[in-house]
Order: sequence, then C-alpha cells, then structure tokens
Amino acid sequence: MIIDCHGHYTTAPKALSQFRAWQMDRLKNPDRLQPDPGVAVSDDEIRDTLENNQIRIQRERGVDLTLFSPRAGGMAHHVGDAKTSEAWTRHCNDLIHRAVMLYPDNLAGVCQLPQSPGVSPANCIPELVRCVEELGFVGCNINPDPTDGYWTDPPLTHRHWYPLFKKMVELDVPAMVHTSCSCNPNFHFTGAHYLNGDTTAFMQFIESDLFRDFPTLKFIIPHGGGAVPYHWGRYRGLAQNMGRPPLETLMNNVFFDTCVYHQPGIELLLRVVPPDNILFASEIIGAVKGVDPQTGFNYDDTKRYINAVQWLEPEVREKVLGGNALRVYSRLRSRLEAQGRLPASGESS
Amino acid sequence: MIIDCHGHYTTAPKALSQFRAWQMDRLKNPDRLQPDPGVAVSDDEIRDTLENNQIRIQRERGVDLTLFSPRAGGMAHHVGDAKTSEAWTRHCNDLIHRAVMLYPDNLAGVCQLPQSPGVSPANCIPELVRCVEELGFVGCNINPDPTDGYWTDPPLTHRHWYPLFKKMVELDVPAMVHTSCSCNPNFHFTGAHYLNGDTTAFMQFIESDLFRDFPTLKFIIPHGGGAVPYHWGRYRGLAQNMGRPPLETLMNNVFFDTCVYHQPGIELLLRVVPPDNILFASEIIGAVKGVDPQTGFNYDDTKRYINAVQWLEPEVREKVLGGNALRVYSRLRSRLEAQGRLPASGESS
Repeated sequence: MIIDCHGHYTTAPKALSQFRAWQMDRLKNPDRLQPDPGVAVSDDEIRDTLENNQIRIQRERGVDLTLFSPRAGGMAHHVGDAKTSEAWTRHCNDLIHRAVMLYPDNLAGVCQLPQSPGVSPANCIPELVRCVEELGFVGCNINPDPTDGYWTDPPLTHRHWYPLFKKMVELDVPAMVHTSCSCNPNFHFTGAHYLNGDTTAFMQFIESDLFRDFPTLKFIIPHGGGAVPYHWGRYRGLAQNMGRPPLETLMNNVFFDTCVYHQPGIELLLRVVPPDNILFASEIIGAVKGVDPQTGFNYDDTKRYINAVQWLEPEVREKVLGGNALRVYSRLRSRLEAQGRLPASGESS
Repeated sequence: MIIDCHGHYTTAPKALSQFRAWQMDRLKNPDRLQPDPGVAVSDDEIRDTLENNQIRIQRERGVDLTLFSPRAGGMAHHVGDAKTSEAWTRHCNDLIHRAVMLYPDNLAGVCQLPQSPGVSPANCIPELVRCVEELGFVGCNINPDPTDGYWTDPPLTHRHWYPLFKKMVELDVPAMVHTSCSCNPNFHFTGAHYLNGDTTAFMQFIESDLFRDFPTLKFIIPHGGGAVPYHWGRYRGLAQNMGRPPLETLMNNVFFDTCVYHQPGIELLLRVVPPDNILFASEIIGAVKGVDPQTGFNYDDTKRYINAVQWLEPEVREKVLGGNALRVYSRLRSRLEAQGRLPASGESS
C-alpha cells in the first residue's frame, strides 16, 4: 500500500477563504458587525475540488492513500488571538473531515491545531482530542513558530509544549512539524521559512532530552528534513562535539518525508537516513507546482524519483512507500484494519 | 593552488576576548570606568595560536592558502550599538591583518563589518575601504541578520543594503553571507542559524532583481549553501512558478562553498551546482571539530571528500579547489601575482 503522508487541502472551496476574510475583517474593524458567514459548502463542491486535483493525481500516480490536512500556509497562527485561531482551525479541520468522509479510501485526516503566539499549546488539546477521537484523524501538524516568522515562542523542546505532547502520546498520534506562512520579509514561506523550520526543529531535538521525557512521541520533519540529510555529517559531528547521544538515538522519534523535488536530493536522503525513518510524501498541488523541463514530469512526482533509485532494496522501497507510515501513524493501521484493507493487527502490510 | 575560502580566527589570543568582555561590561555598567584595555598581543602569541592550529592543519592537508576572517560567531552584531560594533570590528580585523602579515603565503584577509541592527549598512563602508585598500583584504563577511536570531532588519535584497553593495562593486570584493551567534533559543547557532541564514539568502536572491542592479556583485553562500543544493529541484520549481528567471541567471553572482561534512553531501553538491560555482572550503577549527568514527578522519577534512569523488573531472576538481576562488576573489589573484606566486594577469592558474 502506497501512502503519501503529506497532503494539504490547497484547493478547498471558496467558502473557507471567505470565512477567513470575514474573520480578518472583523479583527480590523471590530465595530462593523457582519454576521458570521460560517463555511457553507456542499458535498459536490468538495468532490469537485478534489476529483479534479488531489484525487486525480493520486490515481494517475498510483498512490493509495494520502494523509490530508488543512493548507499549511493558511494556518497563519499569528492572526488575531487564540479564539480567532480556534474558530478558524475548527472550520479547516471540519472540512478535512468531510473530504475524508467522501473519500474514505483515498484520504485520512491530519489536523491543524489552534496555536497562538504566547499561548500555551495546552489550548490545542480539546481540538486534538475532538479530531482524533470524534473525527478519526490519525495525526496533527504542529507549527514550531506560531508567530509566523519571528520565532519568539519557546523551542519545541521547552516544557511549554509538554501538555500537548503528553496528550499526543496518550492518543498515540504523531505530529508533522510544519511552519505556516511568513510575515517576515526575510523569509519566503515555501523557499525559506518551511525549510528553516525543519532544520531548526531537528537541531532542537539534538540539543534536548525531549525523548527521554516522551519515549514514544513521534515527529515527522517534512520537506525531506530541510537541510538535515544534506548536512548529516555536520549533525553527527555537532552531537559528538556537544556530548549529546548519536543521531541514531533520535530515530525512534524523528522521521523525514520525501518532499524533495529532484533525483539527486532523493538519492541523498535514501543514502544517509536510516530506511525505517523515511516516509513517502509529495505535497501535491503544494509548494512546487508545474513540470520540470529537465524531466518532463512534475517536480512533485516524488514516487518517480524513488522508483528510479536502482540500488534501493525492494523491502526498503516498500517501507518508504507505505510500511513506515503504517508504523509511525499507528491509528492509520487500525483505521485500515477496520476498513478491511489490512489484515488484523500484528501482521505486516 | 589549493585555496580554502572559509577560515575564521577561532583561536585568537585571549586579549581579544578580554577586550570584548570589557566592552560588554561597559555596556552593562556604564558608570564603572575601567580603562579600555585595547588588544595587546605579541607576534609570538599570534604565531602560537596559528602554528599549532590552522597553519598546522593547512600543512597537513596540503592546502596552500586560506581566506581568513574573524570568528563568525564572535561578530555578534546585536551587542551594543554601531559604535560598539565599530570598535570591536576594528580590533578583530586588525588581528586578522597581523596574522596575514606573519603568514602572507598561507593567509589572505577577509573582514568582518561593523553592522548593527537598524543601522544603515552604509556605516560599514569606511571599515570595508580601510580593510581592502589599506590592509589588502580580498573580501568581507556580511551578516544577513544583525539582530542575531530575530531577523527584523530588511532582506539582503532591500535598498537598505545598496550603499554597501555599491562600494563592494567599486572595490571588486565579494561577500560571504554568514550569520553570527544566535540570541534566539529556537536557533542553535551552528546547527540551525548558520544553515537557515544560507537558505534564506539564496531565496532572497531568487525573489529579487538585485543582480540586475549590481551585475558584478558576488556572494559566497557558505556551509554548502545551507539547504539549497539538496533542494535544487524545489528552487528551480519555485523560480519557474513565480515567473522568476531560472537559477542559471544567478550563477554569475552566487557561489557555494564546500563546508559539508560527509561524502554524500559533497557528492550532491558537486552533482547539482554548476562547477564554476563551487569553492573549496573547510572552516577548520570551526563548527564541527573532531574525528568522524565512521571514516577515522576529521569531519571538516572536506578536501578528502572532494578527492574521493571518482567521477569528478580533473579540470572541475582544479576549479573547485582553487581556480574558482581566484576568479571570484579577483583581488586575491592580484595579490598572488604581486607575490610572484601566479603568472601575471590573464593567464590561467
């Protein structure tokens, strides 16, 4: 089973952005009392936005299942306050749930969280519980910088985050560490802020004892891990210099996706990161749209790069393309078992 | 000729840090009037700090020349104000000059600049001119984030920087884009802030028309270009999506060093970045000290990785190890010609 662990609803119906526009307007003009428009969307609209986009591409590329979350750049946790973030997050996650209900074989839900700068991530627990227990979601996205470009909240390894991590462990859901938009003119969002967030998170993990405190907490670092695999020697050396345990000790907890959009990058990733720690992903209709004139295929057709790696053992390819996702997202396995798409627990995919 | 374009005086005599401590103390306790201790260092002290360190390693590894600048983490432009930065920078650069005078065959000077958050980089011009014209330096380091971790100054491509760039062009000196320490607990300095700075700068260049305004301005992005070569496909795709010119159009202006501390990373760099745009560097006694137990050699012995790339054409290896540095640092060529170490201008190295 081929599982893409990184997809966003980048094509969501207009009503969602109209709600957001209403929210922003209310923040700017608190006296102008426009009624809350909600997010009124028909099933057909959802089908339209997916059939012609994510679901079509999924079928064309032979992907069985996508872990589907709200648009990352849209999370924009810096906007308004915790209440703003909460209302927005609820709508975004509800729409993911509806998409998943319409395409239960193609999609599984991953939620955004109502983070807000300076606010304890404990405030995200009710929404996480709702998404996982009521809506059947299998993971969440955590924004390591809710300020969206100024990084003034504490590192992911600070106790500030512990209440949320405790609940993640309890629910047995992993988080993808994914920044959102950038308000900082220094950082282009998909060209700098995303990759910087990935790189930053990994180094925070090296520096801390987070996984001693939470031995079963799991993070996926997207976009191939930012700069990390390319600088694997640097990180091994830094850990060694700092008297930290070797990188291998992070490998029960930290995973990398394959959103790297050229052949040499994918090969490096597969060469340096342990095979159990790489999860297939493409982030389609995402950061990098369009066809690479050098190959004639879409930049984001990462399955093609993986399949082109001649020296990859078949069992490693299978792990990367799906087996690892089933291990890391343990609720996904239960979900597939309940759907009768996987044999009952304990057996291999 | 083998030229390492990225070395810092990380082993500078204690008197330098004592001066800095005095400066910091004066900032904290402006009423306590300790006399300015200056930086009193003998030639022998300088020899001691280098003979046992950078010069020894240079000889052991068969490197002919290192472009030598003050410690990057020590620039700490956020400390105090522009006057603080100016006094500190002058001492740091003077010490580089003395080291170069003692080892004129082994070292060539690259200066730090008296940047300060919120202050126009025009204030760096006198020190740049002094270092280049009076002290014979061949390049400078520019900190893209003088706040040291909060990124509240304008991007490198903003007109804010233009007076400095104009002078760089006039003097014909390139700049290495190098962040300094990090005051932000989110960013480990060598494990996140350095690489993020590299990645960020490259994306700024993609987004802007800086090199239309300054066609001969040259930047070296250190640490193998941060995340950039690993994500070369992403950047090609982003440029294409954004209607920006292809990456090749940046290649007269943007160069990458080889401070990547493992074999697969160096191979990726050599595979994706055009051969004229890669400059040998190792940053010895720098971010990553120590021996890699997997190879038995120092992590930062990057010449070894380059030499181990079997498929690299000899003429490309020669460019990477020295020829490109001579082209990018044009004042270095003149300097070597004046020393009689290179035939007079126009001829190949």
